[in-house]
Amino acid sequence: MSGRLYALGVGPGASDLITVRAARLVAQLDVLYAPAGRKGGDSLALSIVREYLSPNTEIRTCHFPMSADDSEKQAVWDDVAQQLQAEVEKGRQVGFITLGDAMLFSTWVFLLERIGRPDWLEIVPGVTSFAAIASRAGLPLAMEQQSLAIMSCTAPQAELERALRDHDCVVLMKVYGRFAQIQALLARLNLFPHALLMSEASLPGEVCWRQLDSVAADQPLPYFSTILVNKQQIVSRDE
Amino acid sequence: MSGRLYALGVGPGASDLITVRAARLVAQLDVLYAPAGRKGGDSLALSIVREYLSPNTEIRTCHFPMSADDSEKQAVWDDVAQQLQAEVEKGRQVGFITLGDAMLFSTWVFLLERIGRPDWLEIVPGVTSFAAIASRAGLPLAMEQQSLAIMSCTAPQAELERALRDHDCVVLMKVYGRFAQIQALLARLNLFPHALLMSEASLPGEVCWRQLDSVAADQPLPYFSTILVNKQQIVSRDE
Repeated sequence: MSGRLYALGVGPGASDLITVRAARLVAQLDVLYAPAGRKGGDSLALSIVREYLSPNTEIRTCHFPMSADDSEKQAVWDDVAQQLQAEVEKGRQVGFITLGDAMLFSTWVFLLERIGRPDWLEIVPGVTSFAAIASRAGLPLAMEQQSLAIMSCTAPQAELERALRDHDCVVLMKVYGRFAQIQALLARLNLFPHALLMSEASLPGEVCWRQLDSVAADQPLPYFSTILVNKQQIVSRDE
Repeated sequence: MSGRLYALGVGPGASDLITVRAARLVAQLDVLYAPAGRKGGDSLALSIVREYLSPNTEIRTCHFPMSADDSEKQAVWDDVAQQLQAEVEKGRQVGFITLGDAMLFSTWVFLLERIGRPDWLEIVPGVTSFAAIASRAGLPLAMEQQSLAIMSCTAPQAELERALRDHDCVVLMKVYGRFAQIQALLARLNLFPHALLMSEASLPGEVCWRQLDSVAADQPLPYFSTILVNKQQIVSRDE
């Protein structure tokens, strides 16, 4: 069997929100690369796929630094990309897992830029966190002629405001550490009746806030926290 | 066992791009409602789940008219919503399937608006078509501080143009029948090097066009055709 690399989006967190294709591919891997948030830290992506893994699969956790030092990051990406290619050249079945979808706000894309699109690469899409949140909260995202903007809260405030003004629906990702300023923005635009925040969607620690005006500005939030806004819907406060 | 309703996003088209959760739930349904494009026509959503169905599951295909007549549509939504609730009250396990994700540009949302969020309802998210296209084409959607707008080509031209100006990445859904005007818009904004069109992603009939300037304006396109734009990437023309 010739070597192949599978970049697998593993979904938002619950093990059974992975695709059937990704689950089947995970089961036949020789080696699996799993990103971890901190050096030696746990990998949520790895915990998602663990029940599908064969005992014969070698697991390599890799740490991608969040540091501002660009050259440090580049060196890690270069190294992991080279490792993946070297494993494929040995004829092995290689997996790289990434939370949510593989192509949207995904660490995998830094590796893709180094690897290109060779025949031995297959990318498998996954369920995004915001889709899981919309389902769990019962809040639709966009329908018919409406539009949806997916924003990172690390973007400039003016861009977030423009998206909130221009689009019917907005997903605000990476709220962590930025809730106070997002809350103030939602207040200014009178969007509290149309907004909710969910943390750790589909995981045991899932929490949903449906009254963002009553959340303390310094409320500690889990790392995986996302705000959904839909101006065409009123977020009910009944739970 | 008490009755339950499962609204299941079944993904973009390939049977194995459904989630493990949806596949398992489909296998235990008493009755499955599947939307069909035309009266008596085939249901792509049904073909996706067929391999997971139990032979004991009753299948009901329902046709949602595309007509401009709002009262005709309303009557059909009311009727199907009532049927779903009546089945749940009988204590049955009821499924409603919808292409892609359940909460984004989804017919299911018209039913959700009638049913509300009772305890007996579970919504299961799915892989969106644009995520499947990005993976198949190897074109990332957004990363780091970038933003992504999801637009329907049925929206006013000015809104499409604004999204294409303001965002790094844009997904243009429902291209069908509107390619000529979208092509002219992409030309005016010099976006051809950053755009691609894919039809029937993940299905046997999948086609990808990477040079939208060389596609005839009257090119017949399949119904499921979507354009991805990423200004931070050059769409390679090598395949």
